Amino acid sequence: MADLFWPGDDRASDHFTSESFLWAMVDVEADWLGRPLLVPDELDWLSNEAESGGNPVIGLVELLREQAPEVHRGLTSQDVVDSALMRMSEAAVVALRQDLHAVITRLAELAATHRDTPMVARTLTQHAVPTTFGFRVAAWLTAVLDADDDLAELDFPDQVGGAAGTRAAMVELGRELPPGIPRWHTTRAPVTRLGDALVGCTDACARIANDVVTMSRPEIGELAEGSGGGSSTMPNKANPVFSVLVRRAALTTPLLAATLHLAAAQQVDDRADGGWHAEWATLRDLVRRTLVAASQTDELLTGLRVEADRMAATLAAAGDAVLAEQRAMAEAAGHRPEPSYLGDAAAYVDAVVARAHSTVESTAEESQ
Amino acid sequence: MADLFWPGDDRASDHFTSESFLWAMVDVEADWLGRPLLVPDELDWLSNEAESGGNPVIGLVELLREQAPEVHRGLTSQDVVDSALMRMSEAAVVALRQDLHAVITRLAELAATHRDTPMVARTLTQHAVPTTFGFRVAAWLTAVLDADDDLAELDFPDQVGGAAGTRAAMVELGRELPPGIPRWHTTRAPVTRLGDALVGCTDACARIANDVVTMSRPEIGELAEGSGGGSSTMPNKANPVFSVLVRRAALTTPLLAATLHLAAAQQVDDRADGGWHAEWATLRDLVRRTLVAASQTDELLTGLRVEADRMAATLAAAGDAVLAEQRAMAEAAGHRPEPSYLGDAAAYVDAVVARAHSTVESTAEESQ
Amino acid sequence: MADLFWPGDDRASDHFTSESFLWAMVDVEADWLGRPLLVPDELDWLSNEAESGGNPVIGLVELLREQAPEVHRGLTSQDVVDSALMRMSEAAVVALRQDLHAVITRLAELAATHRDTPMVARTLTQHAVPTTFGFRVAAWLTAVLDADDDLAELDFPDQVGGAAGTRAAMVELGRELPPGIPRWHTTRAPVTRLGDALVGCTDACARIANDVVTMSRPEIGELAEGSGGGSSTMPNKANPVFSVLVRRAALTTPLLAATLHLAAAQQVDDRADGGWHAEWATLRDLVRRTLVAASQTDELLTGLRVEADRMAATLAAAGDAVLAEQRAMAEAAGHRPEPSYLGDAAAYVDAVVARAHSTVESTAEESQ
Amino acid sequence: MADLFWPGDDRASDHFTSESFLWAMVDVEADWLGRPLLVPDELDWLSNEAESGGNPVIGLVELLREQAPEVHRGLTSQDVVDSALMRMSEAAVVALRQDLHAVITRLAELAATHRDTPMVARTLTQHAVPTTFGFRVAAWLTAVLDADDDLAELDFPDQVGGAAGTRAAMVELGRELPPGIPRWHTTRAPVTRLGDALVGCTDACARIANDVVTMSRPEIGELAEGSGGGSSTMPNKANPVFSVLVRRAALTTPLLAATLHLAAAQQVDDRADGGWHAEWATLRDLVRRTLVAASQTDELLTGLRVEADRMAATLAAAGDAVLAEQRAMAEAAGHRPEPSYLGDAAAYVDAVVARAHSTVESTAEESQ
Repeated sequence: MADLFWPGDDRASDHFTSESFLWAMVDVEADWLGRPLLVPDELDWLSNEAESGGNPVIGLVELLREQAPEVHRGLTSQDVVDSALMRMSEAAVVALRQDLHAVITRLAELAATHRDTPMVARTLTQHAVPTTFGFRVAAWLTAVLDADDDLAELDFPDQVGGAAGTRAAMVELGRELPPGIPRWHTTRAPVTRLGDALVGCTDACARIANDVVTMSRPEIGELAEGSGGGSSTMPNKANPVFSVLVRRAALTTPLLAATLHLAAAQQVDDRADGGWHAEWATLRDLVRRTLVAASQTDELLTGLRVEADRMAATLAAAGDAVLAEQRAMAEAAGHRPEPSYLGDAAAYVDAVVARAHSTVESTAEESQ
Repeated sequence: MADLFWPGDDRASDHFTSESFLWAMVDVEADWLGRPLLVPDELDWLSNEAESGGNPVIGLVELLREQAPEVHRGLTSQDVVDSALMRMSEAAVVALRQDLHAVITRLAELAATHRDTPMVARTLTQHAVPTTFGFRVAAWLTAVLDADDDLAELDFPDQVGGAAGTRAAMVELGRELPPGIPRWHTTRAPVTRLGDALVGCTDACARIANDVVTMSRPEIGELAEGSGGGSSTMPNKANPVFSVLVRRAALTTPLLAATLHLAAAQQVDDRADGGWHAEWATLRDLVRRTLVAASQTDELLTGLRVEADRMAATLAAAGDAVLAEQRAMAEAAGHRPEPSYLGDAAAYVDAVVARAHSTVESTAEESQ
Repeated sequence: MADLFWPGDDRASDHFTSESFLWAMVDVEADWLGRPLLVPDELDWLSNEAESGGNPVIGLVELLREQAPEVHRGLTSQDVVDSALMRMSEAAVVALRQDLHAVITRLAELAATHRDTPMVARTLTQHAVPTTFGFRVAAWLTAVLDADDDLAELDFPDQVGGAAGTRAAMVELGRELPPGIPRWHTTRAPVTRLGDALVGCTDACARIANDVVTMSRPEIGELAEGSGGGSSTMPNKANPVFSVLVRRAALTTPLLAATLHLAAAQQVDDRADGGWHAEWATLRDLVRRTLVAASQTDELLTGLRVEADRMAATLAAAGDAVLAEQRAMAEAAGHRPEPSYLGDAAAYVDAVVARAHSTVESTAEESQ
Repeated sequence: MADLFWPGDDRASDHFTSESFLWAMVDVEADWLGRPLLVPDELDWLSNEAESGGNPVIGLVELLREQAPEVHRGLTSQDVVDSALMRMSEAAVVALRQDLHAVITRLAELAATHRDTPMVARTLTQHAVPTTFGFRVAAWLTAVLDADDDLAELDFPDQVGGAAGTRAAMVELGRELPPGIPRWHTTRAPVTRLGDALVGCTDACARIANDVVTMSRPEIGELAEGSGGGSSTMPNKANPVFSVLVRRAALTTPLLAATLHLAAAQQVDDRADGGWHAEWATLRDLVRRTLVAASQTDELLTGLRVEADRMAATLAAAGDAVLAEQRAMAEAAGHRPEPSYLGDAAAYVDAVVARAHSTVESTAEESQ
């Protein structure tokens, strides 16, 4: 579906489209019914109907009853919507982690390759001390690994509580009750935890993109995106477009996750009067933008050009100034400055790379 | 376009759809060219292309050059995107104000009708002193009038600056320069003011909806939505669905407007590296949700049932307690309590209703 | 320290005050130095000095060098600030969890006591089906337990990396390097995870407060805060003040946590040029407000009056309407309605109460 | 009052301190009483008392009654708090505009001085076309002028409505009613408009600071802050500290203003049950941070070093590439490239400078 407002949106494929939402809701109803249901093709009609009931389930059940009059018995609208959101979320997180693992693999290679590539460290925009590009990449990698860890912790519970969570209708119908206590109509940790974890991903991707837009400034020139984006009027331009678009995402996602928390904090009675309804589109946008950002980060890294000569030249030009700390420390220690001033940077790179391999491998094993 | 995630979305019609965006951009290019251009029908291709350049203009210009090789000369992508956003915004604000004026008219009638309908005032959820329902409606009306005032102040400037705002290409081409100083590539007040004004509208609509969901609780029963929304499992339910959906919007729009400010505060150089790109979808969602909320508020008020008897009964039942302040004041003043305790509530209603009439009439005159 | 702008602020005690920040920073420096340091009493001077360096460490080191010239060697400002923030955070989370465990204990008792107290369930503000007050309390309890689980997962790592994270100065000085890979100058998961977990707490407290403000409306009257707050002019008022103040907090905390994510997504180079600095006050406000909200929730629950008779009366008055679903289900199942319509509500209460006991007990064991 | 968490906080002087809040509330009560009142010095006691009533007025009135038993008659707590907030806000905005006008004057001088100083324009971080530093400063100036315009439009109404806005107590007391309709207990445009305008100021200040942090990178070196901030460990550092601190502010203020809108959208009944209470500290932080940011921007500009030679050198080094657009345009126009490629940049500078002078002069006249 074309979206001129969010370039790259199609990278999120059909995750959290209205069609997917419909499929997921039918899937929930079919599982509850115990047999397959055809997905109605009246999406426009359902969309219109959704307003009068406040959610799309009432219209959907009306349609599904033509196939199976006993559909939805014992459930409430929120059971179907929430379960469908969770199923779509689980599928999206699986896809997201695949992209993140591609990013992790690529970063691990990059960090290892540039484990000893010297460059100047910068703090508050100014030259600080020597470092290596591998050390910088290890920082990027740490951020992505942290984000992936949080995704790995997520649960995607079904919601099966009936009208007010008591499962009264199920008992009345004589159905076997689903095991376990989780019914979370008004306690939204499954949604807010998901939102928080997704923002962690765009934080990590933006961490990388910020460095790329900075280091690809022509005056710095230590990195460049593979092809670069063109201009509508300037033939000379090669813009760091993927980085720009990743940064874009990360400016918006923290506020989407905050919206999920605000909605959670509005829960009242046995179903919220607005807070619940605010979640659906917010979660959709958050999921899709995170998927797009992760995929763009992967492509950004695939094409990334590292100008090691330029890094070395800048460090050389920075000269003695960036060794001022070393001189002070050597003087304090009462010896001449050591020939190198990189501390345990290489060991850090090795450790982060090892963590990356462990993450990718253990996930690969789990999914076998 | 069906949207199961935001019930009622179709009330925003084709404002800020990708198709409208395309039309508006072609409109901008045609105005600059000085003759009409056909709107290309390659929306999907444009959407894909938009990523490589970071915005949809580069692909569009490529298509339009088949019709007119001299299209876009002197402009930059941002000129076209920003001008198109402003044109779409102006159209949306015209439509929004029509809905708000319908709301204003309806509220003015309601306030006048219930100018002297007694009810109990509530502060911090508890019974306070006597008031009238007309006074309450006058408060709703004030909020909507304030919001409408802010919309009336907005400007929707074109953006015509060329590659870096200097209009160098226009001078090179020998074009007559557009008059005036406004070129606002990196100074985003036109966008943030629009965002702030739109949030003012959902604030005002939610102010009404909050009272409706509260006062239509069965234990209070002083208001009811006309038809009410049904339930997927409980035949007895009549939910205040419009109010719930309006409240939903107002939980999300403040964070969208904040995103526009964050993006504005990221402006750097002669075009931002992410801040600009974050605006487009954010503004779309903000505009469409505000349009939907205003329209739903109008329909909510159209069907609103006012239970004056119930209001009177609650006030009567509250009894002496809500006159405790009056007794204290009368004692302080050294006289017996006055028979009424409504202050200048009626005068307030009259004044707000007069303001409403003045607003609606002056706008009607301007649009003639 | 008096704060008229945030009533109840003193419940947060001296967590995250400027004095505590100073103590924590001195503590970090003393640990690194290997011997105790006196805390300077020049807080005002330090506060003024903090601007010129952008953080309070430069001035502090200047003061501490009078005691120990070799202080701070090998560290960077960010090591000290971040480690101090983490130490303050850990202490605050310990205190917060104590309050939450008091809340959990109280809720478990309340749920058990009212396991079978009938009341009417409400969805979208309208009467739905029968439920119990114990079931409602179990939902509150679930939210608090989920929030506490997230707090229990947090880490509070020290930050020990030196100027650019490479530990070059430590090696130059011949110091033994701290073990492990964590140095997280530009990867802020320790901060954002903390922020997200804190918001989970105010979400959970607000979930309770929302029900109390609703159910203590005089027309509903099923709950009441113990004493209630007075009014400056109305002698009759008894306002649900604690609930109001808890709700207040939860309107602000999601945006504070979002600020932490925005700041994390601004990390660039080897130290951010603004994103880092935005965290400190944001985290302070988030921590203190969460502490206040948890403590107020505890006090709210301590005094909470449950009007079981009123609950029963409302359910009775709701009459047949709230059994409409049951009749439909019984008809579908081909039998007469069962005498009860509460499903497995009691089993749910029992399970949540058991989870509460397990949480409180296991934490008590850990802290022995 | 020392604040280690927000370096530079003391620039906001005593605006919106708890002491100032107390003074402003006493001022409101004294005006209403018609004679002066001594300001109680029991700030700590008042702060404690504020929780039980939910706001600081109840305790204050108790203290003031010792001086004047008839104090507060006819008012409600919200009248006093809101009026005090508005009075503090008005004073803060006067101070803020003084700082902004200093900024405006400085920027107008800078733009005029560098009206013809050539530099390279940058879009999406890459070299684009030639521009002038004066043109860039004119963009900064436009942003500040827009922000100042919005401040100039603000109103700071008193709140005088009594318990539920009806002024019943005033009528009972036989007081002459304050003229006009404004009583805005539950319609919060005076607060949200203020919040939005303040964010406009930090947006504009950050717009400047972003360029300074970028252009003062050593590889670019076109700008430098006057003195620069030091480092706790690196003797070589001169950090753009003011710019960093201004950027910090602008990452947080949009979310504070959004909080004010969220609070406004929570208004219900005749006084909100949490939304109102969330405003006070939020507004305080927003006001103080904006004051600090404006003052820091002024100081930043006072010391700003402009390296015109470096600008010229970078432009020269960029070479033919940044004239690629010109060549294309000249070819399209069928002539040889003009010797200059700056369009109407100088005219834009002149126009913005004229607008600046007009703003500063008209404000000076008004304040005479």
